[in-house]
Amino acid sequence: MFEAAQLGHAVDKATFKNEEARLREGLLAAQLQLRQRADFPVVILLAGVPAAGKGETANLLLEWMDPRSIATHAFDTPSDEETARPPFWRFWRILPPKGNIAVLFGGWYADPLWHWQDGDEERMAQRIERIQRLEKMLADEGVLVLKFWLHLSRDKLKQRLKGLQADPRTAWRVTPEDKRFLKDYDRRIATCRTLLTRTNLAEAPWRVVEGWDANYRALSVCGQVLDALGHQLARESVKQRRVDAAPLVKSIDGVRLLDALRLEHPLAKPEYRDRLALAQGRFHGLMRSLAARRLSMVAVFEGMDAAGKGGAIRRVTAALDARQYRVVPIAAPTDEEMAQPYLWRFWRHVPPYGRLTVFDRSWYGRVLVERIEGYAAPAEWMRAYDEINDFEAQLTDAGVVVVKFWLAISQDEQLRRFQEREATGYKRFKITDEDWRNREKWDDYIQAASDMVERTNTPEAPWHLIGADNKYHARIAVLDAMCEALARRLKRED
Amino acid sequence: MFEAAQLGHAVDKATFKNEEARLREGLLAAQLQLRQRADFPVVILLAGVPAAGKGETANLLLEWMDPRSIATHAFDTPSDEETARPPFWRFWRILPPKGNIAVLFGGWYADPLWHWQDGDEERMAQRIERIQRLEKMLADEGVLVLKFWLHLSRDKLKQRLKGLQADPRTAWRVTPEDKRFLKDYDRRIATCRTLLTRTNLAEAPWRVVEGWDANYRALSVCGQVLDALGHQLARESVKQRRVDAAPLVKSIDGVRLLDALRLEHPLAKPEYRDRLALAQGRFHGLMRSLAARRLSMVAVFEGMDAAGKGGAIRRVTAALDARQYRVVPIAAPTDEEMAQPYLWRFWRHVPPYGRLTVFDRSWYGRVLVERIEGYAAPAEWMRAYDEINDFEAQLTDAGVVVVKFWLAISQDEQLRRFQEREATGYKRFKITDEDWRNREKWDDYIQAASDMVERTNTPEAPWHLIGADNKYHARIAVLDAMCEALARRLKRED
Repeated sequence: MFEAAQLGHAVDKATFKNEEARLREGLLAAQLQLRQRADFPVVILLAGVPAAGKGETANLLLEWMDPRSIATHAFDTPSDEETARPPFWRFWRILPPKGNIAVLFGGWYADPLWHWQDGDEERMAQRIERIQRLEKMLADEGVLVLKFWLHLSRDKLKQRLKGLQADPRTAWRVTPEDKRFLKDYDRRIATCRTLLTRTNLAEAPWRVVEGWDANYRALSVCGQVLDALGHQLARESVKQRRVDAAPLVKSIDGVRLLDALRLEHPLAKPEYRDRLALAQGRFHGLMRSLAARRLSMVAVFEGMDAAGKGGAIRRVTAALDARQYRVVPIAAPTDEEMAQPYLWRFWRHVPPYGRLTVFDRSWYGRVLVERIEGYAAPAEWMRAYDEINDFEAQLTDAGVVVVKFWLAISQDEQLRRFQEREATGYKRFKITDEDWRNREKWDDYIQAASDMVERTNTPEAPWHLIGADNKYHARIAVLDAMCEALARRLKRED
Repeated sequence: MFEAAQLGHAVDKATFKNEEARLREGLLAAQLQLRQRADFPVVILLAGVPAAGKGETANLLLEWMDPRSIATHAFDTPSDEETARPPFWRFWRILPPKGNIAVLFGGWYADPLWHWQDGDEERMAQRIERIQRLEKMLADEGVLVLKFWLHLSRDKLKQRLKGLQADPRTAWRVTPEDKRFLKDYDRRIATCRTLLTRTNLAEAPWRVVEGWDANYRALSVCGQVLDALGHQLARESVKQRRVDAAPLVKSIDGVRLLDALRLEHPLAKPEYRDRLALAQGRFHGLMRSLAARRLSMVAVFEGMDAAGKGGAIRRVTAALDARQYRVVPIAAPTDEEMAQPYLWRFWRHVPPYGRLTVFDRSWYGRVLVERIEGYAAPAEWMRAYDEINDFEAQLTDAGVVVVKFWLAISQDEQLRRFQEREATGYKRFKITDEDWRNREKWDDYIQAASDMVERTNTPEAPWHLIGADNKYHARIAVLDAMCEALARRLKRED
């Protein structure tokens, strides 16, 4: 991995001057085209050996390009808003929108590189898997990810640190950590090699550049940025490269998971009232224990129109203090959301410790409405199952209790509710032409929802399929499931 | 202020039940209309005596309304991202978009109410002025601001705290601060009365409600919310109520501020190079002292097209580490920005301590392009001068060094640069039809910019009018002014 970057590459001043003009003009032109098309963003990730020129490279990129659509991000100690959420939240919040460029110092590699020297192998393996999935997802979404490793051999590193320390104006730049790296060079480099090898994806390969000679480094990095940017811009559309996915197989006997669900569960109003009060009381108590244990909760509600999502959500939130929760309705994305990978709009609502976020419809829209209406191509919604499972695993790993509900009603019951809504004053707004159109696609939704449950029903973030023809039953079932999920997680923490 | 809220108001159960149904249906219908029109947002602010029912009121509002377009926000200890910025930043970041409702606990009153009992009169006066301006601006932007003060007489407060403490399930809710409030009731209430009286704006009056009886409190608050919401919805447009402003007077002799500016300052390239290196070095050093003193910097660049804003900005940023600054180009707002008061899109880019944000065009668009093109009504851009001065005063008070540049070129020089751009390859993109159209409005821009400088040239955030027909001169003048501003501020801190 690092062999070619120890050869002592260097570029003389005349060659550099010649190349510089060409590169600068090329980068500016490419950046402009990127901004005007605005159909994909660029992430340039700078990692490497200490003192190998990460800062200088970032400065150079910003100097050579138009600083208005390129920004840098360093990842030092996380802020308290960041530590209260899953580790990758801080990366999601700074992803550049389409048409823009972000330069990340270390990015998602900073942490594993400098803090896992002594090898918690399991944690390292998990982090590497997370990184692979993140980068694959970004690439699939059209993000151009360019990862640079600036390298120095042991001797060159020693020489560089010595040089910096000798000059009082630069001595402050040499940190104790830099010295430790030098002392422990071989072992550190071995870890880095493992990490780089295992994250050297076809979609986002590592680009190792010797960091010793500033001219060589500048031409190498900027040249590669220009090439890669030009290559991606030359495609007619970033979507083109997506491979077609084979369609999911329909059940041969025509029986689907959700067909088998019992929809009607009688529950009379008096009994409902008693059980509701009990369940809400229990839920209230359980939620109060969350914050102290650095836990939070996410609840997802999916189901046909008029399945009773809103009513169930109100019975959940009524048990809580208004400061504890947020209900996020998912409708058409805003244009800031459209300029990002599709999971971005959900990441921004991930709750901090102690809080509940309720999603009224969710990321599952990708494999439901977007699949059915053709807003997402088959390859896009096919890979979404995997991306969603990874997203939810990140949540649960970070202490977020995830519960997911499919509220299932019969077609007859839906019709009855539509008609009832049209008849009652303030409920009339709830029925739109779109609801009637969706109703005609009932079968497609049952198929898509069955596939969804099958592929995203994980032990940590299970689906609860709830027969909801009786609203009372559905609401109690929802609250009970949320209580159970909390109780189980709290017990595990003890 | 509090007299009527000590009368022991109460509502019996039957009356409450009757009213409840009407209110709930009304609130839901109004909320739906609000969401569908989405032309203004609602801020409900809950303040008051301890234990007077703020939490219960918020819970009730969220229970009675559709939780999908209403959210609550509490303002406890600021996060570290918040403390690194001006005090009001945390309010701006949670303002609800048009069509939505936010319930704020205390909001911008939390801090002055509970922490300024002993009266730093000057700080209190400043805070009150800030609040007045904020609320006036919000109202002018169409935000419906409803401020509730939940009150308890001294006896009722005593009784309430006693009751809570007697029950082990509620005893935890009584804090030491609550007890201090009771002990010091008269003096505290006197402070509150002053605060309320001085912030009782016509646009956002206080609504004092006795908090003792839960039924009375619920009907009063929800009834007032419904009335106010209905009133605002009944207007054909929230813009309608804006009064027409008298036009600004043109200079009688036709001479405007910017006409008097000398545009040409000879500076040869060799001298420019030397001075640039010196100024950049000085700037670099000054910027490094910022973070430790909890200071940051905002630089605003305005000027005609092709005045050299981009080039000057690049000479500024080239002196810095890429991690220290961000360049924010201001073009058309995104739809999330359109759903907020116009200053919101600038607040979101206010830098934390130690950083520089460069705005390539800025909030001054309100009194330049928006005035000239008629995007903002006269009353809107007329009040903008004041709003902008307040915004900048908030920045400078919080340790942000604000510098503002108007780069001035002659019409001939602009023509020369346009033609040059059209002739050179990668610069061609910089010229659009709009630039030619703007050029025809040259005179309007000179008038608007002259008014702007006249009205927003404050000692703390001064304008620097820079004759920029010679680019070299302009760049040096910009860097020198930034250095001077930093040096002056740093000196004051010593």
